[in-house]
Amino acid sequence: MKQVLLIFVVLFQFSFVCFGQDNNKPAPAITNIAGVAYPLVLPDLRVEFRIKAPDAQKVQIDLGKMYNMTRDDQGVWTVTTDPQVPGFHYYSLVIDGVKVADPASESFYGTGRMSSAIDIPEKGADFYDLKDVPHGALSSKYYFSKVTNSWRRLFVYTPPGYDVNTKAKYPVVYIQHGGGEDERGWSVQGKTDIILDNLIAQSKALPMIVVIANGNVSSGKGGYSNEAMAAFKQEMTQNIVPFIDKNYRTLADVKNRALCGLSMGGGQAFYVGLASLDVFSSVGIFSSGIFGGIANPNGKAFDADKEIPGLLSNSKAFNQKLKLLYISVGEQDPRFEFTKSSVAKFRESGLEVEFSSFPGDHEWQVWRKSLHDFAQRVFK
Amino acid sequence: MKQVLLIFVVLFQFSFVCFGQDNNKPAPAITNIAGVAYPLVLPDLRVEFRIKAPDAQKVQIDLGKMYNMTRDDQGVWTVTTDPQVPGFHYYSLVIDGVKVADPASESFYGTGRMSSAIDIPEKGADFYDLKDVPHGALSSKYYFSKVTNSWRRLFVYTPPGYDVNTKAKYPVVYIQHGGGEDERGWSVQGKTDIILDNLIAQSKALPMIVVIANGNVSSGKGGYSNEAMAAFKQEMTQNIVPFIDKNYRTLADVKNRALCGLSMGGGQAFYVGLASLDVFSSVGIFSSGIFGGIANPNGKAFDADKEIPGLLSNSKAFNQKLKLLYISVGEQDPRFEFTKSSVAKFRESGLEVEFSSFPGDHEWQVWRKSLHDFAQRVFK
Repeated sequence: MKQVLLIFVVLFQFSFVCFGQDNNKPAPAITNIAGVAYPLVLPDLRVEFRIKAPDAQKVQIDLGKMYNMTRDDQGVWTVTTDPQVPGFHYYSLVIDGVKVADPASESFYGTGRMSSAIDIPEKGADFYDLKDVPHGALSSKYYFSKVTNSWRRLFVYTPPGYDVNTKAKYPVVYIQHGGGEDERGWSVQGKTDIILDNLIAQSKALPMIVVIANGNVSSGKGGYSNEAMAAFKQEMTQNIVPFIDKNYRTLADVKNRALCGLSMGGGQAFYVGLASLDVFSSVGIFSSGIFGGIANPNGKAFDADKEIPGLLSNSKAFNQKLKLLYISVGEQDPRFEFTKSSVAKFRESGLEVEFSSFPGDHEWQVWRKSLHDFAQRVFK
Repeated sequence: MKQVLLIFVVLFQFSFVCFGQDNNKPAPAITNIAGVAYPLVLPDLRVEFRIKAPDAQKVQIDLGKMYNMTRDDQGVWTVTTDPQVPGFHYYSLVIDGVKVADPASESFYGTGRMSSAIDIPEKGADFYDLKDVPHGALSSKYYFSKVTNSWRRLFVYTPPGYDVNTKAKYPVVYIQHGGGEDERGWSVQGKTDIILDNLIAQSKALPMIVVIANGNVSSGKGGYSNEAMAAFKQEMTQNIVPFIDKNYRTLADVKNRALCGLSMGGGQAFYVGLASLDVFSSVGIFSSGIFGGIANPNGKAFDADKEIPGLLSNSKAFNQKLKLLYISVGEQDPRFEFTKSSVAKFRESGLEVEFSSFPGDHEWQVWRKSLHDFAQRVFK
C-alpha cells in the first residue's frame, strides 16, 4: 500500500467535544477544525487569529468588537485580540467587508447562518467536558407536523441505561433554542448530552429525557408574535409531546414534563409553558427579552398579569400547578436588570420563582450553566 | 406580547432533509440556509449565485470550475453557471482570492473544512428523499478509544422498530467516510438514515444497524499508510465492533457484519475488511483510489495478491469466507477505468465480485447510490 499516493493528510482529530484545555500554554481553540493551529488561545485568554489572503485589501475579525488584522509581506494577516470572556462566542472573518465563517473554525448554526465560533475555556468549569462516565445517546428523529405540513427533525437525549432498563420510564424536559438558531443549538453549542451525562453520573439530576425541537414554526412572522406563539403552542402540545410520548418510554403526565428555553425559547417557555399547565408543570426561562432589555428597551410595557392572566393577581393558583418556575440571565446581559425587576415583582405578588444569574452576556456559557442549574432543580 | 420587538425574523424552515424539488421552476437549493433564496437552481440545472460585497475587488464561485461573478452598481455580485450534474457538490465562495464557505449555504465537513455545498436534484431519484415511511433513529454515542487514548464520537443508525422490538437482533454495516471528512459525512451528506428507512419500508433491505465512525485514527500519517491502516484495523476490530456489540442488540457474528466505505474508506474496507475475515464477511469498496486513478495514476503498481496475500492466487478461500465483495465507482471518476480493470482481473482469478457503476464523478451522489445498492445486496 506504500505505492498509493496520499491525497489527504489525515491529522489526529481533536474533536470539539473531547477535551478541556490546559490554560497554562497557548493552545488551538477546541472549536477549531481538527489539526488547525489558529485561532490560538493564549494563557491570558487573548486570541491570535491568522489567515492567508494575499489579494485582500482589508481583513478583520468580528468578535462583537471589530479587530483589524495586519498583513505581512507574505500576505498572511494576523491579529491578537483583547483577553476574551470564557465561553462560546460566535465570530466572523470579514474579508473586504464581507462577513463569512472563518475556514479555520467548525461552523455552528447561529445568527441565522453557519457561523464560526470560539470556545474560550473557563477555569474550573468542567461540567460540560466529556468525561469517563456512563453516556446516554443523542438521537435525531423525524416527525410529521400538522402545523407546517412537513417532516421536521428533532433531537432526543436519552440517559445512560435507557436501552438496557427497558421497563423504566423517564420525565421529559423540552428545551428550546434562541432566535436565529434551530435544533442544533442545544445539541451542539449547548452540549446538552454531556451536561446531563455528568449530572446524572453525580446523582445531581434524575435520569431524564431531553427533547430538542426546532422552534421556528410559524411562517415569516417572528418568534414573539401572537401568531408565532400560537403556532408554537400547537406544534409543541399537539405534535411534539404526543410524538415523544408515543415513541419513548416517558412518564407521560403533567408533573413529569418541563418546558424551558433560551432567549426566544425563553419567551416560548413563558407564553406557551405558563398557558399550558395542563401539559407542563415546570417552566424555565433563560435570558429572555420579554422582561425588557434589547427586545423591550424600557421594560415598563411588560405586564406579566396581562400576558398570562392571573399570573400575579392569582399567583396562588399558579403556585399550586407549578412544580418549578425558574428564571435565569447573564449578569452582563442587557436583560439582567429588567429580569431581576420582574423576578422581584413576581415574588412580591406571591409567585414562587427560583432565580439564578451567571457571569456572562447573551451567550451560550450562560445557557449551558442555566441548563446545568435547571436540570438539578426540575422533577425533584 | 405585541410590544416586544422582533430581533430575529424567523422564516419558515425548509430543512435540508425535508423536500425534494420540483424541477420545473427556479427554486432555492435545498442545501441553502432556511429561507435564503440564492443559490437558485434553474430548471435546466444552471445555478444562479448572488452575494453582496461592495468593497471586494473580485468575487468568484469555485465549483470545480471557477466562475467569475459580475458586480452591479449596488455592489451585488452575480453569476449563472453552466448546467450542473445532479448530486451533491462542495463549492466555495472566493473573495479576493480567499476561499470560504458561502454564508447562503449550510456547511458540511468535507475537504478538511466546513464547506458550502449545493445539492442539485436528480429527476426520478427519490431514494434519499424523506418520505412518509417508518423512520429509524440516528444517534451519536461516545466510546473510549485505546488506540487514540481519547473519547471519540460515532453515529449509529437503528432501524424503525428497534426500540419496540426489544428482543430483535440486527446485522451491522460499518461504513466509512473519505479523506478530509469524518463521521458527519455519511450522517449528513450521505443521508444514510433516510436511504435505509426507504429501503426497509420497501422490504428491499433487511432491518439493519449502520455504524458511522470517524476513520481518522492515526496521528498525522495519512489514511493509506501501513501505520494508518494498522491503527484503523485495531480501532475498528478492538474498540468499535466490541463497543457496538456491547451496547446494541446486534447479531454478533461474522456473517452479520459488513465493512464498507468510500474513497479512503473504501481503501480501509479493502485493507482492513479483507484482512479481518474473522470479523467481517461482507466488504464494500466505493470509489477507492487503490486500484489506480488520481491516487495511483498508472494503476500498474497495484498488486492485489501482494496487498492481501492469496486474494487472487487463492481466491476460492476468499470466496468461501466472503458472503459479499462489492465494488462500485462513478463513471466520470478518474478511478473508473482502473477500477473496472481490477474487477476484471479479480474475476479472471476466480474471485467473486459484485460490481456497479453510476453516473457521476468522485462525489456523494455516487456514494448515496453505492450505499443504496450495497444495502440491498448485503446479508441476503
